[in-house]
Amino acid sequence: MDTNAAEDFFKNSSNFLLNVAVDNVIFGYHEKELKVLLQQPFALDKWTVTGGYIQKTESIAEAAARVAHMRTGLTGLFLEQFQSFGNPQRVKDNGFTAKHIAEVTGYDIPENSWIFDYFVSIAFYTLTEFSKVKITKSEFEAECQWWPVSELPLMMFDHELIIKEALKALRLHIAHYPIGYELLEEKFTLPEIHNLYETILAKPLDDRNFTKKLLATGIITKLNEKRQISGHRPPYLYKFNKEKYDEGLKSGVELVF
Amino acid sequence: MDTNAAEDFFKNSSNFLLNVAVDNVIFGYHEKELKVLLQQPFALDKWTVTGGYIQKTESIAEAAARVAHMRTGLTGLFLEQFQSFGNPQRVKDNGFTAKHIAEVTGYDIPENSWIFDYFVSIAFYTLTEFSKVKITKSEFEAECQWWPVSELPLMMFDHELIIKEALKALRLHIAHYPIGYELLEEKFTLPEIHNLYETILAKPLDDRNFTKKLLATGIITKLNEKRQISGHRPPYLYKFNKEKYDEGLKSGVELVF
Repeated sequence: MDTNAAEDFFKNSSNFLLNVAVDNVIFGYHEKELKVLLQQPFALDKWTVTGGYIQKTESIAEAAARVAHMRTGLTGLFLEQFQSFGNPQRVKDNGFTAKHIAEVTGYDIPENSWIFDYFVSIAFYTLTEFSKVKITKSEFEAECQWWPVSELPLMMFDHELIIKEALKALRLHIAHYPIGYELLEEKFTLPEIHNLYETILAKPLDDRNFTKKLLATGIITKLNEKRQISGHRPPYLYKFNKEKYDEGLKSGVELVF
Repeated sequence: MDTNAAEDFFKNSSNFLLNVAVDNVIFGYHEKELKVLLQQPFALDKWTVTGGYIQKTESIAEAAARVAHMRTGLTGLFLEQFQSFGNPQRVKDNGFTAKHIAEVTGYDIPENSWIFDYFVSIAFYTLTEFSKVKITKSEFEAECQWWPVSELPLMMFDHELIIKEALKALRLHIAHYPIGYELLEEKFTLPEIHNLYETILAKPLDDRNFTKKLLATGIITKLNEKRQISGHRPPYLYKFNKEKYDEGLKSGVELVF
């Protein structure tokens, strides 16, 4: 850890709200893989989702967008607030003490620092195409990288629960709202969008039933064009009907599989 | 306002989290009426939902249950966390200043008191039979009473928005989970449960369609027994099938009208 950065942080800490912070569960999709962006704070041996403190001049949504932008370089992410977590135990962890941090980093944080206080976490999730993300770790993290949601490393605090609840919220969301516009190429095949849904829901979906329900929403349109794949019968290409898609984002669609 | 109570409160304020609190939107149903429990803090001319600060020893859910119990006398309320609200403006209100409070109450609160700081509100809603509620106002409120959700008084801060979002969450909830067990008599008629749904959704529901969808869930059972109403054809009585009802609370039911 950069000692100057740490000193600056604590010098400016009166800019932050106490006892409440934001956490972002950033899911990344890319070709049949669902990952989550995690960081390793203070070179400890556990991981957290990416998050940060709330400045006194910003809303909780602005704080979530700012810290998401810092880690991913992306702006305009759809950050959905899904749940807040708060109990006196939630930021207790045997690695997260002034003593342990000093041993690992050489930086002395006061033992009674406000960072060890009871913090309520306002949690958001987002879903992005992970090849678009330029990961930038902060001075306080040893690592910041993608992990498969099915193979999480050892998590700090209650962050495994936060990811579990975010996944639940994401799965509920895709049963009622269209997804895929930022996740697939402009033109895609039915197997490609089928893979997207199967990956997020982590279960196989019957081909015919999936296609029937998806087409019934009107959010995708069949093109008079095929993908050329050597050695295969070329599949038809589809694209999103942007008008129906945007309408679905507002009023909802029924896509319960 | 009781000056001793106020002094006690500020003396013990280091027991509370800063910058984050809970707000409960307590809905009350009784015979075709949907109301919300509001309080008038510091004898000001505006109203808020009932809420309170979070003690350092309790979880956010425990804080919500404690303050709900203080106002209603009820325990075991289903308090659903639905959204958190936070931006630098949200607790600004021209009535909520040390000067104005001193004028109205005769009690001097420091101008820079932590109660005027940026507070994030973790909001919960609940729905109860309002004749069961024994309203108890705190020393800091001039009034605490039921208001019809369709005729709210002048609200403080962003509390009108909080109620609007709570109603949205409640309406979404009843499309996916059974309600009524604590709101209707043990034996009820179809018009009675129909009224419950119409009142919460604030729209007329087609009789046949409502009955068909409700019966399809299996959560209510027709009894071989009728309600005696003078001058009317006696309607059949129904009761909840508790097993199906509890199953529905866990796995959900589809009741989209």
